Order: sequence, then C-alpha cells, then structure tokens
Amino acid sequence: MTEPTLDIVAIGNAIVDVIAQAEEEFVAAEGVTKGSMRLMDEETSDSLYSRMGPGREISGGSAANTVAGMAAMGASCGFIGQVADDQLGEVFAHDICANGVIFNTPARSGQPSTARCLILVTPDGQRTMNTFLGASQFLPEAAIDRALIASAKILYLEGYLWDPEEPRAAMKAAIEIAHKAGRKVAFTLSDAFCISRHRGDFLTLLDSKAVDILFANEVELLSLTEMDDFDAALEKVAAKVPTLVVTRGAHGAVAVQEGEHARVSAEPIERIVDTTGAGDLFAAGFLAGQVQGRSLEDSLHMGAIAAAEIISHYGARPEAKLDELIKARLG
Amino acid sequence: MTEPTLDIVAIGNAIVDVIAQAEEEFVAAEGVTKGSMRLMDEETSDSLYSRMGPGREISGGSAANTVAGMAAMGASCGFIGQVADDQLGEVFAHDICANGVIFNTPARSGQPSTARCLILVTPDGQRTMNTFLGASQFLPEAAIDRALIASAKILYLEGYLWDPEEPRAAMKAAIEIAHKAGRKVAFTLSDAFCISRHRGDFLTLLDSKAVDILFANEVELLSLTEMDDFDAALEKVAAKVPTLVVTRGAHGAVAVQEGEHARVSAEPIERIVDTTGAGDLFAAGFLAGQVQGRSLEDSLHMGAIAAAEIISHYGARPEAKLDELIKARLG
Repeated sequence: MTEPTLDIVAIGNAIVDVIAQAEEEFVAAEGVTKGSMRLMDEETSDSLYSRMGPGREISGGSAANTVAGMAAMGASCGFIGQVADDQLGEVFAHDICANGVIFNTPARSGQPSTARCLILVTPDGQRTMNTFLGASQFLPEAAIDRALIASAKILYLEGYLWDPEEPRAAMKAAIEIAHKAGRKVAFTLSDAFCISRHRGDFLTLLDSKAVDILFANEVELLSLTEMDDFDAALEKVAAKVPTLVVTRGAHGAVAVQEGEHARVSAEPIERIVDTTGAGDLFAAGFLAGQVQGRSLEDSLHMGAIAAAEIISHYGARPEAKLDELIKARLG
Repeated sequence: MTEPTLDIVAIGNAIVDVIAQAEEEFVAAEGVTKGSMRLMDEETSDSLYSRMGPGREISGGSAANTVAGMAAMGASCGFIGQVADDQLGEVFAHDICANGVIFNTPARSGQPSTARCLILVTPDGQRTMNTFLGASQFLPEAAIDRALIASAKILYLEGYLWDPEEPRAAMKAAIEIAHKAGRKVAFTLSDAFCISRHRGDFLTLLDSKAVDILFANEVELLSLTEMDDFDAALEKVAAKVPTLVVTRGAHGAVAVQEGEHARVSAEPIERIVDTTGAGDLFAAGFLAGQVQGRSLEDSLHMGAIAAAEIISHYGARPEAKLDELIKARLG
C-alpha cells in the first residue's frame, strides 16, 4: 500500500447556507423542532424563504465545514460533493477551494439548483435548519474520485448524506475503497431525526466495522442506542467502534479510543451568536489533532477550541485563524 | 399636491456584496487604493474572485443599505434598482423586501448577471470595494416608478449610480419628478474617485438646486471642492445646499442646515470588524431622524448609532434592532 498524501477526504452535501435571524415564535409557527434539520422540496423552501428575514449566504454543508476547518488548522484536505452549474454552485466551489481544500467534483447541468439550507437562528443562538438538497442529492457513484479517496489517511462521511439514494450508494463504495487502501473511515451521525430515519443502516455500518471513528452529540448517541442513560449508551457504542467522540454542548465532550477515556470542558465564549457548524468544527479540531499525532485529550481540546470559534459568529466556516488559536492554547 | 405616503424612495445600484477577509499585502498587490471603490468588468471580477478568500454573500448597494437601515428604524421605504433574473438577483430582492422595503423593479433577462461587489476587508476593518455593475448599470428611465417617487417625502440618490449612463438619465428624471411633487432630494457623493469622475456634474446638481440634502465624508468634501481646509470646504458647500451632512470617521460628524450647525462624536464601539456601509447607515440614521421630526443634533446622533452598529459586524445591513438601539439611547 502507498503512503497517504492527504490527511482527509470528505464526502458530503454541497450546500450554501442562507442564515437569517428569526424569533422563537417564527420557528414555532413553522412546526419544526428547534435545533433540528428537516428536508424540504424546492417549493416549500421557496415558500419559507419568502417569509424569512434577510439572509447571509455562507457556504456550508456538514462535512464540507469540517474539512474547511481542518484546512484552517493546517491539514491537507479534499472534498467530494455535488453542486449545480449555477451561481450558488460557483459560490460553494469558490469558497471551499479558497479554504485550501481540493474540490473537483464536476458541477451538474440543469435542474435542480445547488442545495441550500435555510437556517433560522433564534436569539439564543440555536439554529434550525431547513434543507433543500437540490443537486446535492444526485451525487453519483461515478463522481467519486477513487484515487483521491485512496490517497487520504481518513475518509469522512456525513450521516445527512444517507438520506438521498445516489450519494448513499456512493458513500458505500467509498468506504470500500478507503478500507482496501488501508485508510480509516470517520462518520458523523449528523442529527437525531436523521438517525431515526436510518438507525438500522447506521448500526449495521458499526457492526460491520465500516466505521473507525464515530462522531455524535449526546442526543444522537441516545437516539442511536434508544437508551436514556448517557454512560451506558457511551459504553455500548464505544464497544462497536475503535474511536468514539461525543459532544455535549456546554458540557464539553468525551472520547473513548480503544478503551482509553478522555474528557474536555467546553471553551468559554463571550456570546453564542449562531451554533451552526458547532459539531462540524468540533470534528474538524479533533481530527486535525489526530492527524497531527496529538493525544486523545489534546485532540478533544482542539475540537472545543474550533467549536467555540464557530459559534461566536454567523456561519459554519471559520473567520479567525484557527491554527493560530490552537497554537496559542496548546502550542 | 398630495400628502406623501412614504418616507423615502431610493434609487441605487442593486448589488450583492461578497465579503472576504484579506491581508494588507493582498490589497496592495491588487494595486487598488485601500478604502476606495473601483469598477471592473466581469472578467476582471471573476479573476479577483478566484484569488480572494472565502466569502459571505450579503445584500448591499449604497442606497439600498440606507433604506434597509431606515426601515429597521421604522421608516416607510421604497427602492428602485436593477437586478438580473438569476440567483443573486433573487437574493437581493428577497433581502430588501424582507427588510420591509417596497421593491418592484422588474428583473432584467439574460446577461449581464446581477451586480456584485467583491469587498476585501483588511485586519483594521477597512473595506476596499471592487464592483462589477452587471445588470445594475442598465436601470432604464422606463423602470423608474414615477408614482412611487412622487409618493415619498425624500428621494435618495447615490453618486455611484452616476457612473453608468442609463441610471444617470433615470436619476435626472427622478429628480424632476420629486421636485414637481414638492419632495426633497437627498444625494450622497459616495466616493472620492467617483467625485473625480463626475465633479462637474455634481457641482452643477448643487448649483441648480437639484439637491436638498447632501451627504459626504471628509475626503469627499475636500475632493468635491478641491480644497484642503475642512472648515472652508464645509462652508463653501453648505452655501450651495439647504442641508449638508459630513461624516468624519472616528471624529464623528457635522451637519449644517439653513445656517444651523450641529456636531456629534462617533459612538464608542468595542471592535471595528468591517466598515462596509458605515456611511450608508449614517445617512440612514440621519434621515430617519429627520423624517421623525427630530432635531439636527439628534438626527446626527441616530446616524452615529446606526453607523456604529454596522461596523461591528460583517456586511452593510443591520443585524441588531436599530429602532430599539435608538430608543434606548435617545428615547
């Protein structure tokens, strides 16, 4: 087997976020669970857009945010995802490349348009996501760059992309490519509702040893195991996967790696502006630490620092120089 | 003459800003004067875009920012400007309508695309603007909503729109409509380089009494008069226009209205993030104060409060509730 030349390649939804402030009442009236992600068709998306406040368009997508964050911490990264050949597709492609991430999935002609996620941010900083998957759901297995995947230490996959059929097949193929090349596979469970749609598949992935590093938040861990005791759920899932990382919001995060346990507190921040991307950037910090050969605890700490930066401003792509932040804190 | 039903109608460039952080060296290497606005064709814009950092797309346009800000302070506003029928055109239209501004200029089919302004924000918070006018430069006189203009107390025009030929003709027609309806005309000089391109026209506008309220910053005032003494330039221009408002950055602002002088200090802020829109929002605060019947000094104060809010975050559209900020400060 050849030595990897990249740190990570991610496959994920290629999405432009449209981030707007919203009152609690507006989110409640939409009938959506605050803090969750729901899928919608273009018509419903257009209807919500016409009612929501003025937006900022900032490139997003869970796994894309993670590799953009890792690149900002010095990791060498690639991304695979499907945009349409429209203005928002150009925005997505520009931004991820400007972040230093290799991205060469060809844009898709015609309808539907590039995916967008209408994000309602309430005054508490909580984000509620309303996603029109658009072109993103048509990522074909043929668009998977096999050489790119085989060249990276880690293949990173987002649970969200399990919803549409074509990318799900593409991700399964990618897992096989990565493992055949002797690489690790990291997977994020993404969202509790996403788990409720795919619990069986996700458990099969874990039981078949398809996943080497699993990311979840507390709610997702409990949803996956259908348990209500955090510690018991942690141990149950930790037995299925070599590395498990679970974020607990303001209560920090915990990791279990081959029996070793580590914990970290949340980083103190002045004000939570927008929690969009908090989990994505936690994963970015943790994985950047792991590929740098740092300890489990230091990797968690890097996750906490990156997550704290992202929730202090609108959008899920870093504004501060994450590498300098990390260096100042951890050396 | 009928009573006005709107506070203000603005005619301006309909632009989506693409805001990116940039190092001082990057701006210097572009050969552009930091803090200025330069016009560029689509090819040059695309080339700069490919080299600049990841962006946030936030609706902009000088006069559009002003009416969006005024709407956030409770004024009833309209906007006239030309977008293309593309995704960024939809973004512009959505955002200004979501700000509560009446906007019904039909989108223009085909090329060029909606105007975009590539804004490089250096670590000092200063913005350097690189504008591709796109569809915006084709605002035809026929698109001017005469009834809308006649219905507003104030017609607000941006100097930037003097560059392209069709909107210039449209603005001249609009001035005539407004004055015939007994309304006031406000004008912002926009930019020192813009003045150097149109000094003769701008002085003719003032000498022909086409302008009732003139906005400038210190550099623009000196450029217009080709003088180097601020106080002398202030008095010279104040003699030509019923109301003159001049902003002086960190040194506050001064207004002269029918011989009455007023001054205000800049509002203290924690950190200047991005100065984009500072002048636009100062004008918004001042005009909102004037249509509320506030004193000259209070109107200046409202300008300073609105400008301070806009430079504390990325983008030239308000994030905080300006009406509440004003109420807390001025009652």
